[in-house]
Amino acid sequence: YDQAAHAVLPTVYERTTAAALSHQAVNLGQGFPDQEGPQWLLDAAASAITESHIGPPNQYAPGTGLPALREAVAEDMLRRQGVSLDPGTSIMATTGATEGIAATILAFATAGSQVLCFEPHYDSYGACAALAGAELVGVPLTAEDFRPNLDAFAAAISDRTSLVLLNTPHNPTGTVFTAAELEQVVELAHRHGALIMCDEVYEQLILDPEQQHRSILSIPGASDIAVAVSSAGKSFSVTGWKVGWVMGAPALINQVRGVKQFLSFSSGPAFQWAVAQGLRDDQGYLSALRSELTEARDHLSAALDEVGLRPNSPGAGYFLLADISELTDLDDAAFCELLAAQVGVAAIPVSALIIADQFPRNHRLRRLVRFAFCKDRHSISEAAKRLQQRL
Amino acid sequence: YDQAAHAVLPTVYERTTAAALSHQAVNLGQGFPDQEGPQWLLDAAASAITESHIGPPNQYAPGTGLPALREAVAEDMLRRQGVSLDPGTSIMATTGATEGIAATILAFATAGSQVLCFEPHYDSYGACAALAGAELVGVPLTAEDFRPNLDAFAAAISDRTSLVLLNTPHNPTGTVFTAAELEQVVELAHRHGALIMCDEVYEQLILDPEQQHRSILSIPGASDIAVAVSSAGKSFSVTGWKVGWVMGAPALINQVRGVKQFLSFSSGPAFQWAVAQGLRDDQGYLSALRSELTEARDHLSAALDEVGLRPNSPGAGYFLLADISELTDLDDAAFCELLAAQVGVAAIPVSALIIADQFPRNHRLRRLVRFAFCKDRHSISEAAKRLQQRL
Ligand SMILES: CSCCC(=O)C(=O)O
Ligand SMILES: CSCCC(=O)C(=O)O
Repeated sequence: YDQAAHAVLPTVYERTTAAALSHQAVNLGQGFPDQEGPQWLLDAAASAITESHIGPPNQYAPGTGLPALREAVAEDMLRRQGVSLDPGTSIMATTGATEGIAATILAFATAGSQVLCFEPHYDSYGACAALAGAELVGVPLTAEDFRPNLDAFAAAISDRTSLVLLNTPHNPTGTVFTAAELEQVVELAHRHGALIMCDEVYEQLILDPEQQHRSILSIPGASDIAVAVSSAGKSFSVTGWKVGWVMGAPALINQVRGVKQFLSFSSGPAFQWAVAQGLRDDQGYLSALRSELTEARDHLSAALDEVGLRPNSPGAGYFLLADISELTDLDDAAFCELLAAQVGVAAIPVSALIIADQFPRNHRLRRLVRFAFCKDRHSISEAAKRLQQRL
Repeated sequence: YDQAAHAVLPTVYERTTAAALSHQAVNLGQGFPDQEGPQWLLDAAASAITESHIGPPNQYAPGTGLPALREAVAEDMLRRQGVSLDPGTSIMATTGATEGIAATILAFATAGSQVLCFEPHYDSYGACAALAGAELVGVPLTAEDFRPNLDAFAAAISDRTSLVLLNTPHNPTGTVFTAAELEQVVELAHRHGALIMCDEVYEQLILDPEQQHRSILSIPGASDIAVAVSSAGKSFSVTGWKVGWVMGAPALINQVRGVKQFLSFSSGPAFQWAVAQGLRDDQGYLSALRSELTEARDHLSAALDEVGLRPNSPGAGYFLLADISELTDLDDAAFCELLAAQVGVAAIPVSALIIADQFPRNHRLRRLVRFAFCKDRHSISEAAKRLQQRL
């Protein structure tokens, strides 16, 4: 593990949040909502701490998570995805999706192997692959509409590939992978003896009715080679709770558990209990959240368009991508610095979310900036106003 | 990383808790208290979730932890240890000590190197060393009184040693390392270019007035090569909160942060906030807890002694060790099974806490059983009664 090459800087999210604070910029960088989760959910967690309806609520949770959470996840997967999972052996709680991702990569990416992902990708994938002694290799999503190029993927995967990392709905593009796309990936992974991890943390945030989220676990042939990772942070606007879970065949979950139990052991019983309540009955929260996100996306998108920062049309999630090439010759990172310091809006350069040295400096994926629209009306309006007035 | 050799079983703590449940045994296995932390602390966490006195309390905490927590840890270290730490750069919050241990080992144990510890040792050390591609090598504490044998340590350390893992007060022996012992370890680590991690999670649980806990960071010469790991779980009886921290020189903390940010990113802002209150003013909790633990230790110790399970005299912590050799020819693991199933008391075989194949079957460290006395009066009395009646 090469400390010098990885991970010595704080993550791009933290650096951007720090820049936003120092410039009093509207923070459209790090993907966390301005608004806290619903009051009934917060109350459920708070009361679980002081009233003991979940066994000893402030001691170690069971290593695989509270049964109530695992049962609620199983019911939710059956209802929304038609996937039947045994809560006892096929679902394990983790300290957010981040820990699920780390444990899965450490469990499955063998030293010296390749780990394949689509580009751009969530930044922890590369760091965890490096910790496992594996090499992350990226296959760019198509430049026009950010869809998986399956010919390029087929050319990249090989018997050296130990693990394929998918992410749908995709951060930062908002692309929702189709069943046909996922089926082809599964087929290729099978052919090369690779496992699959699919990061599905935006699964509940489908904003376009014509899009449909398909969990990797709902894809024929995936059940023996794939695990899915999800979490409550984005679904219920509680990113700080760090309640995530990994799902899949018992043999795979057991291997991930084998690593995870030594990363954090277990965490957050009171939060796990509250999330179980939320998954069972969201009290209309998710559909209201989707409406708010759609409105915020459309508002911000219009403002970006107006100033020549051509936005994409994400079908899901928290993020818009803006193409900066019409507006500036600066690279994306320099443009983000200028944006925070002079326009007062913090955003994330997509070059921080790719294996940058694999792309020429003028590649489309290096001419993009990510704006988080999971922010309240006031923040979005203020950002729109600043973009319109100062750019 | 060899999945087959490590980590596929649940940890020994979980297996023991499961055995305790299935036999309705008193659970003196896993080290968590029967009693929840003080009500005012639980209330502080619960109210931090629903009232926003710490910024957005349910979103990502800063990657290094809430400033309030880091400042409280710094004040506590200055007050108790005379160690001055910059809360901005020398202290980082983690998801319990477990994550601090994992991140430190992954950051400092280079592939192919040796990681040295005293035996017995906390089970995650070996798993994390294996994840880092390093080899864990154990130096047994002395058989008579469980103290570090520094000649053996000096013989074991070499230029292949990347990292030394200390643990004081020590789990499971309760040994509190003296300043002189720690100084020699520091000196030897310096000579061989090794770093040191010292796990100090039982630091607040000194039960014998003649013992004094010395943090590794208080030892001359340690500051540029050592990090200390601690947590709130044991001090405040909230093992499920998973609020831990790593302390040391900024350059070392920065490297540990570089790994930790990709394991869980950050966790538990409301719990961090409550722990900060507890560290600032424990409202007499710690001294009451120490009295209760001392009473429980003495009660259980007398019962063990009476039935021929000769107990040690731990100066600190949660655990007693009992020597089973007078009573039985069974090995420690088999004896623990019998104890859970037939006596109704669950305990942990020390062979699960050593690199077992490095010791002959009749070595003293394989003839010991660990009993957790961090349990309420009722549990301790019931366990004592069962031992006396059924053994
Ligand atoms: C863990 S901080 C990053 C949050 C996030 O998911 C994102 O901004 O992409
Ligand atoms: C993380 S479960 C183990 C708890 C503990 O510290 C112990 O029993 O030694």
